[in-house]
Amino acid sequence: MAEQRVLEVDLGERSYPIFIGDGLLGRPELLQPYIGGRQVMVVSNETVAPLYMQRLLPGLGDCQVEQVILPDGEQFKTLEVLDRIYTALLQHRFDRSCTLLALGGGVVGDMTGFAAASYQRGVNFIQVPTTLLSQVDSSVGGKTGVNHPLGKNMIGAFHQPRVVIADTDTLDTLPERELSAGMAEVIKYGLINDAEFFSWLETHIEGLMQRDKALLAEAIERSCADKAAIVAADEKEAGQRALLNLGHTFGHAIETGMGYGQWLHGEAVGAGMAMAAEMSLRLGWLSEQDRRRVDELLEKAGLPCRPPEDLGVQQFLDLMAVDKKVLAGRLRLVLLQGIGAAVIVQDFPPDALEATLGAFQA
Amino acid sequence: MAEQRVLEVDLGERSYPIFIGDGLLGRPELLQPYIGGRQVMVVSNETVAPLYMQRLLPGLGDCQVEQVILPDGEQFKTLEVLDRIYTALLQHRFDRSCTLLALGGGVVGDMTGFAAASYQRGVNFIQVPTTLLSQVDSSVGGKTGVNHPLGKNMIGAFHQPRVVIADTDTLDTLPERELSAGMAEVIKYGLINDAEFFSWLETHIEGLMQRDKALLAEAIERSCADKAAIVAADEKEAGQRALLNLGHTFGHAIETGMGYGQWLHGEAVGAGMAMAAEMSLRLGWLSEQDRRRVDELLEKAGLPCRPPEDLGVQQFLDLMAVDKKVLAGRLRLVLLQGIGAAVIVQDFPPDALEATLGAFQA
Repeated sequence: MAEQRVLEVDLGERSYPIFIGDGLLGRPELLQPYIGGRQVMVVSNETVAPLYMQRLLPGLGDCQVEQVILPDGEQFKTLEVLDRIYTALLQHRFDRSCTLLALGGGVVGDMTGFAAASYQRGVNFIQVPTTLLSQVDSSVGGKTGVNHPLGKNMIGAFHQPRVVIADTDTLDTLPERELSAGMAEVIKYGLINDAEFFSWLETHIEGLMQRDKALLAEAIERSCADKAAIVAADEKEAGQRALLNLGHTFGHAIETGMGYGQWLHGEAVGAGMAMAAEMSLRLGWLSEQDRRRVDELLEKAGLPCRPPEDLGVQQFLDLMAVDKKVLAGRLRLVLLQGIGAAVIVQDFPPDALEATLGAFQA
Repeated sequence: MAEQRVLEVDLGERSYPIFIGDGLLGRPELLQPYIGGRQVMVVSNETVAPLYMQRLLPGLGDCQVEQVILPDGEQFKTLEVLDRIYTALLQHRFDRSCTLLALGGGVVGDMTGFAAASYQRGVNFIQVPTTLLSQVDSSVGGKTGVNHPLGKNMIGAFHQPRVVIADTDTLDTLPERELSAGMAEVIKYGLINDAEFFSWLETHIEGLMQRDKALLAEAIERSCADKAAIVAADEKEAGQRALLNLGHTFGHAIETGMGYGQWLHGEAVGAGMAMAAEMSLRLGWLSEQDRRRVDELLEKAGLPCRPPEDLGVQQFLDLMAVDKKVLAGRLRLVLLQGIGAAVIVQDFPPDALEATLGAFQA
């Protein structure tokens, strides 16, 4: 039986719905009310386009529909590749009433969103995320952008979509490793402020990893709702939104240190959460039992619980200092005072950080 | 006697002051209240930096001040050159509380503004425009961006500065041609909706071209006020703001057709306004006498009153069709129903446009 949920992200005049379920791709009634103008540029990549483009197109009606197919991978999330989207828009004479639609994972979504934010100083944006990670992460928050050789996601803008369509059917073809990577973000929402959801995940992790559609839809909706609650209260990341960086400061250091594309973002976040849990344990905030629950759930989700051994303590510290969560030279970390009780910490003993990094070198 | 005027641009929580006068550069009390954080990146170009950087720096106090010096010219307003700003910010480990300061003309302002809009999804921005054009145009409206090989200003964002400092002393070194180019925008404000200002300009054009500081300050303030009144009512260019494009649709076609950097923007706008006046005359909206007043003031300001002869009618039409003012494939033009009475026109006889373009081919 087809499942369809809808979650409204409340951002005043920029509010938008997220449709979640199976069989959603290509349904005109979900797409057409949100298309501005008569021109739609679908941006996808070489992996996703052959799988889902034909299923999507009927939903776009009789607009002028053009396509840009990007190479697949985080290493292509650059200004140079972004320029291909601008070029296609200009070659097809798209005007400022046009719509950009992202069909793909986080990389496609981030790049398409930034192209939409910056083409003619801002045009309409629709997201059709096709990975678990992008369904639970990119769907909410309006963050768009590209990487720079000196840092991840350093160039970008806040730009909200007009609608998000998360079709769980697209997860059928998702590689196992990417399913795990998406699950890292799902687990993150439980860890931040939803202990009940964390317990639900512990109960259902096997079914989720077997891609049970009903369980996936529930996990996606709950993740988006948890994220939306944080984002709606704090759209510009002045305060509480930083909680969403749980596992990310460590994780970005791993991604940058290993070179983009070696570790999946979610894998790095998984290891990053394990590191945050370890540091929280060392500060006496998290019990050994809860630390073990974190590691066990990560493991059942097929995620790494430790950083790669190639990264030394000093290299880690260097990498973390250019992370964009650094405020005026002072490192902020998101740590755990319990499962479902994350906190933003700026004043921590530097020893604790180094000891934590050292613990994983063993 | 030093002159100092201040104009408040009213944009709600993003309101900011424009300081106008001589001797303003390097005055800490005008700059420091508007610097966020402790890191300032001054972006300038090879022409302006040697002239005014040393005068500016004392105003920045004891922040971490770094510089990026770009090559001078519209042809460098590209994604590639923009990337140098991002690289400098990352190399110096600037965080998201930093401030970008543009010291230079419109190109420096547009690029620095877009870098500020997009670095870590948005940081503080201060503008110190050093050309007449940028003092009257870029100071108000929040438009930032770069060019694309297929179109001018096609990539960008709206990003408001925290303060603008328009020091008329910097106009001492401005080449004659650029003074004229700036005067084109000044004249534009009179033409759009300020007939009294247009008359004032007819009276004072000689003094202005001799760079009388008091007259320049008055012209800058009045231009900024006229623009701010339009922009404040319509920050996102849904309606009235399009009036500011008077002369620009024709002008952009000239700039693009000739290749960026051949004609100055203001020169192209000057010719564009003469073309708009000619078309308005042909539609029976503008008297021959008023058309002559437009041409005479443009001439006294040292501006061209006609497009370059190399551009044919068809080439013009092609170039205008990719202009970003094209809404859903229909060309919008700003024309004159009198001096100080500009209107946005979408339904005009195509013949009138072609006849106007043809008239300048003779």
